[in-house]
Amino acid sequence: MQKYGGSSVKDPERIKRVASRLVKAYDEGYSVIAVVSAMGDTTDELIAKAREITSRPPRREMDMLLSTGEQISIALLAMAIDALGYPVVSLTGKQVGIRTDSVHTKARIQHVDTTRLMKELGAGRIVIVAGFQGVDDYDEITTLGRGGSDTTAVAVAAAVGAEVCEIHTDVDGVYTADPRVVKDARKLADISYGEMLEMASLGAVVLQPRSVEYAANHGVRIHVRNSSHDKPGTLVQEERCMEKDMVVIGVAHDTNVAKVAMLNVPDRPGVAYKIFSRLAEEGINVDMIVQTSKERQVTDMVFSVNSDDAPLARTITEELSRELDAGDVLVDDTLAKVSIVGAGMVSNPGVAARMFEALAEENINIEVISTSEIKVSCLIAAEHVERAVQALHAKFGLGG
Amino acid sequence: MQKYGGSSVKDPERIKRVASRLVKAYDEGYSVIAVVSAMGDTTDELIAKAREITSRPPRREMDMLLSTGEQISIALLAMAIDALGYPVVSLTGKQVGIRTDSVHTKARIQHVDTTRLMKELGAGRIVIVAGFQGVDDYDEITTLGRGGSDTTAVAVAAAVGAEVCEIHTDVDGVYTADPRVVKDARKLADISYGEMLEMASLGAVVLQPRSVEYAANHGVRIHVRNSSHDKPGTLVQEERCMEKDMVVIGVAHDTNVAKVAMLNVPDRPGVAYKIFSRLAEEGINVDMIVQTSKERQVTDMVFSVNSDDAPLARTITEELSRELDAGDVLVDDTLAKVSIVGAGMVSNPGVAARMFEALAEENINIEVISTSEIKVSCLIAAEHVERAVQALHAKFGLGG
Repeated sequence: MQKYGGSSVKDPERIKRVASRLVKAYDEGYSVIAVVSAMGDTTDELIAKAREITSRPPRREMDMLLSTGEQISIALLAMAIDALGYPVVSLTGKQVGIRTDSVHTKARIQHVDTTRLMKELGAGRIVIVAGFQGVDDYDEITTLGRGGSDTTAVAVAAAVGAEVCEIHTDVDGVYTADPRVVKDARKLADISYGEMLEMASLGAVVLQPRSVEYAANHGVRIHVRNSSHDKPGTLVQEERCMEKDMVVIGVAHDTNVAKVAMLNVPDRPGVAYKIFSRLAEEGINVDMIVQTSKERQVTDMVFSVNSDDAPLARTITEELSRELDAGDVLVDDTLAKVSIVGAGMVSNPGVAARMFEALAEENINIEVISTSEIKVSCLIAAEHVERAVQALHAKFGLGG
Repeated sequence: MQKYGGSSVKDPERIKRVASRLVKAYDEGYSVIAVVSAMGDTTDELIAKAREITSRPPRREMDMLLSTGEQISIALLAMAIDALGYPVVSLTGKQVGIRTDSVHTKARIQHVDTTRLMKELGAGRIVIVAGFQGVDDYDEITTLGRGGSDTTAVAVAAAVGAEVCEIHTDVDGVYTADPRVVKDARKLADISYGEMLEMASLGAVVLQPRSVEYAANHGVRIHVRNSSHDKPGTLVQEERCMEKDMVVIGVAHDTNVAKVAMLNVPDRPGVAYKIFSRLAEEGINVDMIVQTSKERQVTDMVFSVNSDDAPLARTITEELSRELDAGDVLVDDTLAKVSIVGAGMVSNPGVAARMFEALAEENINIEVISTSEIKVSCLIAAEHVERAVQALHAKFGLGG
């Protein structure tokens, strides 16, 4: 069970290289299933085409459009394997039996019917599966959102009972911090599902968070590795083995963050519900939420969103502000989030304090703080983010 | 029921124009179904991608690849209609219920299950159908060959009992000859199925021949018209109404012809079967066949093929020649075919003779002759083809 991302299949040469890797595994006696993404920038190009037609394409039609990207990849990869003289078949999401709910562009896999898959493997074929896509109960094509091919790979691995799901990408594994920011960032040999989920959600984009969640629920081990060589990468699994003594295992950051502040919101029951349900209806993921009462009966509602969603969030909150008779809406999209992650944090008090200390030493102001059992996140000015990551990496002794 | 070819949807502007035409028909109270092809050169670009991977892509994977072209068109056209505020849904070949046989890249439609189509029309939606594609009984994606979207349109029209199937293209209709060759070529108001079939097969590429055959079998009238204006085009129907007195209705030509001659083939039963079944197995369509006995026990077997197939035809016939202990194989791909077409021909003797007269007057040598009830075709040197078409057009008084 292997998965290849868009950069691994972005041109004919790379497609042929992936084909060689797969037939090698086949020759070693494995049943080979490969999940592939769309080639290189195909998905972005398709989105650009849609934008030329309309600024608000229906989500169902976006799925109809975007799912072609993976279909092109699987056909070409299957041709490359056939050209090497090996038996192969490509399967669309529909053909491979990936059933999802009906939430177009962000569908969730509900079930994988492995009948066809098992038949093809039984016939000795290498099976190439289109990532990112499925069908709902009404035969409608759905897609799984950015990075959805990871989830396809994990779901197929779970369905066929594969021991490990190999995610081949253009990095060597999961690092203690982004190696482009921190020179002595170290590749982790393994990481727990929970930690990986936090790292993925917090901006260390290696795996789609949903794929990690799916893997945890189904007990699938994920091996994140580089598609251009054979060295081991990072294992994502139930428990870390090697580095149990590490309290903090990594520093994540995300520069794609905007803060929205609704000032002087009437402080009565149901207001928060009204605000955040309206945002959810429009498909905006709200991350950190802080509510601070300044005086009696009014409160400031502050939250963070992906900066792509900031303009829409502004429109909606301004509407809400009028409806609720609240004050101004302030939006700041020059922010970044830095986070420390580690499952050991829960039993080690004082970790958050050391984080604040590191930021204070660098004279970096903290806008918002949010914590969970295994991470602490701070919103800071985007201009300080590299310095913050480097300081935290050093403070927790994560270097090689 | 309307069909739009690749040139009608080749860019966002044209897609929006097609959208406007469809909503106009919807506003006039029609149930609107549109079949669309892939945008502009998309299909050729996809074929080029496959060639970069392998010179012999498996046909099943070609279908997996090529069917994405139409899927992109239907999604974008549906987005454009949605942007105009009209209810719309796009459907793949699978979703629209187009069942075909399993002959990949040249599949034939066997059945159209209209359940989904009727449901969508019943819900008041404009339905956009992917041309060129279907699925076989094993849920495999198939394509219908070059021009297959015409056949999709006719098959869907037949299945829903549409009165007329409008084929929107970049020409005004069917002409008495190619207007680029003959200055006074005239647009025909109507043409019979049989005549259209001959015109289409003989190189006047307006409709896929299979679509005409399907229309004839199911009694669907086809209206070939220009997508850039509203003037009537040419009606393809059971009987010509307007021009019954015309013996010859058009001159077709095809410059994409090669002649293969197998010399001194042993003249014994089963030889022709052996030769032409082998060619058929390799997917080569043989057009005209002439067998001429020169002396006892040996014969020359001469036939024509599409010039794209000439290299493969040469390889196969050279193999056969060795097996059969025959003589040399000669291939000439500098030929063209000119044909006169008309259903009145069968009851008017001397039509063929007048054709030969016209060519003789121009000093054009005839290599091979082939006749049917409603056409006469001659193979001539490609360099003379324009002169031949002009002479025949004048000889039979077809000008405007």
